[in-house]
Amino acid sequence: MSLSLPIALDAMGGDKAPESVIQGARLILKDFPGTRFIFYGRESVIAPLVARNRTLARASEVVHAETVIAMDEKPSVALRKGQSSSMRAAIEAVQKGKACAAVSAGNTGALMAIAKLVLKTLPGIQRPAITATVPSLHRPVVLLDMGANLECSAQNLVQFAMMGDAYARAVTGLAAPKIGLLNVGSEDMKGHEEVKEAHRMLRSGNYPVEYHGFVEGNDILEGTADVVVTDGFTGNIALKTAEGTSRLIYTALKQAFEKSFLTKMSYLLAKPAMKTALKRFDPRKLNGAIMLGLNGITVKSHGGADAKSFANAIKVAISMVENQVNEKIIAELARVRPDISTTVVPLIADNAEL
Amino acid sequence: MSLSLPIALDAMGGDKAPESVIQGARLILKDFPGTRFIFYGRESVIAPLVARNRTLARASEVVHAETVIAMDEKPSVALRKGQSSSMRAAIEAVQKGKACAAVSAGNTGALMAIAKLVLKTLPGIQRPAITATVPSLHRPVVLLDMGANLECSAQNLVQFAMMGDAYARAVTGLAAPKIGLLNVGSEDMKGHEEVKEAHRMLRSGNYPVEYHGFVEGNDILEGTADVVVTDGFTGNIALKTAEGTSRLIYTALKQAFEKSFLTKMSYLLAKPAMKTALKRFDPRKLNGAIMLGLNGITVKSHGGADAKSFANAIKVAISMVENQVNEKIIAELARVRPDISTTVVPLIADNAEL
Repeated sequence: MSLSLPIALDAMGGDKAPESVIQGARLILKDFPGTRFIFYGRESVIAPLVARNRTLARASEVVHAETVIAMDEKPSVALRKGQSSSMRAAIEAVQKGKACAAVSAGNTGALMAIAKLVLKTLPGIQRPAITATVPSLHRPVVLLDMGANLECSAQNLVQFAMMGDAYARAVTGLAAPKIGLLNVGSEDMKGHEEVKEAHRMLRSGNYPVEYHGFVEGNDILEGTADVVVTDGFTGNIALKTAEGTSRLIYTALKQAFEKSFLTKMSYLLAKPAMKTALKRFDPRKLNGAIMLGLNGITVKSHGGADAKSFANAIKVAISMVENQVNEKIIAELARVRPDISTTVVPLIADNAEL
Repeated sequence: MSLSLPIALDAMGGDKAPESVIQGARLILKDFPGTRFIFYGRESVIAPLVARNRTLARASEVVHAETVIAMDEKPSVALRKGQSSSMRAAIEAVQKGKACAAVSAGNTGALMAIAKLVLKTLPGIQRPAITATVPSLHRPVVLLDMGANLECSAQNLVQFAMMGDAYARAVTGLAAPKIGLLNVGSEDMKGHEEVKEAHRMLRSGNYPVEYHGFVEGNDILEGTADVVVTDGFTGNIALKTAEGTSRLIYTALKQAFEKSFLTKMSYLLAKPAMKTALKRFDPRKLNGAIMLGLNGITVKSHGGADAKSFANAIKVAISMVENQVNEKIIAELARVRPDISTTVVPLIADNAEL
């Protein structure tokens, strides 16, 4: 099945842009031949690059955007000055119904701020959350928030649980994904007030999710839960700690094998099995964090993404569209018992502050 | 050099106690022959086990303690009911000057609560921090707080930085360990208020530490800083995420090698190099988290510690005593510019709340 609308790409965002963005799109056409793209950015730079590949050129449109938001630009500045930027143009294409999703490898804070302003949040959602998918021993685990909200109320966490549930059902096909709340221990008495209150709310039975309970840091990659919910500060640090740990072990293994002729020989033999094992943790296969909770699909690619990695971020956007994730989140929120949504959970109350 | 006082051991704390505690002490006598121990716990159980090994028996005293604090006991209950417990007796031995340090593999929350009550904090320290040492590509990294304080003020974080500095100087021998503050990005504008304020304070030059700046999750194990400072919620989750990640990769490698006859053969050849590489991350070698900032040395062993692992926790206690870490922390705090310690930093102000 091919998408009815093109995908909007911020052709200027990311360390290896525009090359990585354009080549990433070209890779997508092999797996998803019907896909169409709109590239936003400096036309004089992008158009010749797109034209090099006839298949890509036929599937693409290039729209000029005058400015580029720098990777270290403050979100507030990006909001003010970024009116004519490639990033904003890509997101506005989604808002105007010209594209089904936007993908950018640019500045995360700016992307979140612009996407919130332009697209607004889904009805019933106070704050969008950056959502990543990480490997585990069994199957991928959905992890949110990865850094959009450094401090979260219990209600924010409960809403993340529902968004994560809808997303996991859509992308993993599980009927009732197990939801875990990240904490420093599994007993009820553990944790700070927000996490304990979110635990009480999720256990109450008033929210239509399969709540597993508290999970700890080691549970994330052990796959104890299918969805792990936390605040953006903790989530960001947990995700990067996991990345750093795998890189450290990988380097240590490499160093050990390079020690002598004998270890080098043994590596040649062990390589295929090791590659199979480590391939599962290739960060490029996991690229593409979703801005979940927005009224329109926006995917953030890693800033350092190469073409293969950027293509994966586009795939995440395609799967969001095909699986109608936003429609499912709206339906999920509608299933919350109405007496709860109007009394205990002021879901829309402080929507304005976003 | 041998210690002038014995080490107090909570013989009943931990999943494998008392066997792991007693055998752990026996292992220590091989490397540190002059060490003496006081075992606290059920005399009828412990005394016969200690008597089995003549060297250990000669170096040890067994003191009866009637009760044991359960692993899932609430700290408040442990404080009230644990008067006659083996854990409390071991800590009181330090307070009374009968022992130079206490080591326990029991309930962390109870241990922290009892140690705070009995030993009190060092002058100028508002809150003790659980401090762990983790491997990195270069050398061990000191990480605090690992879970004693779920929410921390900027001042708490600055005090952790100074305690961590003194500890790292004592145990790693570095003249000026680099101090990093854990955050979601390295730019000044990143993070929540507490972390930004601590960043400003540490950069002011008013504190006698080599401040590196913000570090991210991946920096912990990459060894970007020698000391990584964070609140107990984030620290606990980061540490456990790193543990979970190494376990996941280890399991994935094992599964890949067990696939076929050929991969099994290649494993036999690759095993020595892999073992060398992975040995560096053996959690047993890193056992022993210190309750830093207390007026007396208390080391927490992992609850599931075996004899070898518990022996490492004892080694941590020995190194704390030999390196006079607490004396160094007191000296460090005395070096803080006096105008600062009386105005900007009310160091002792809310000490009472502990």
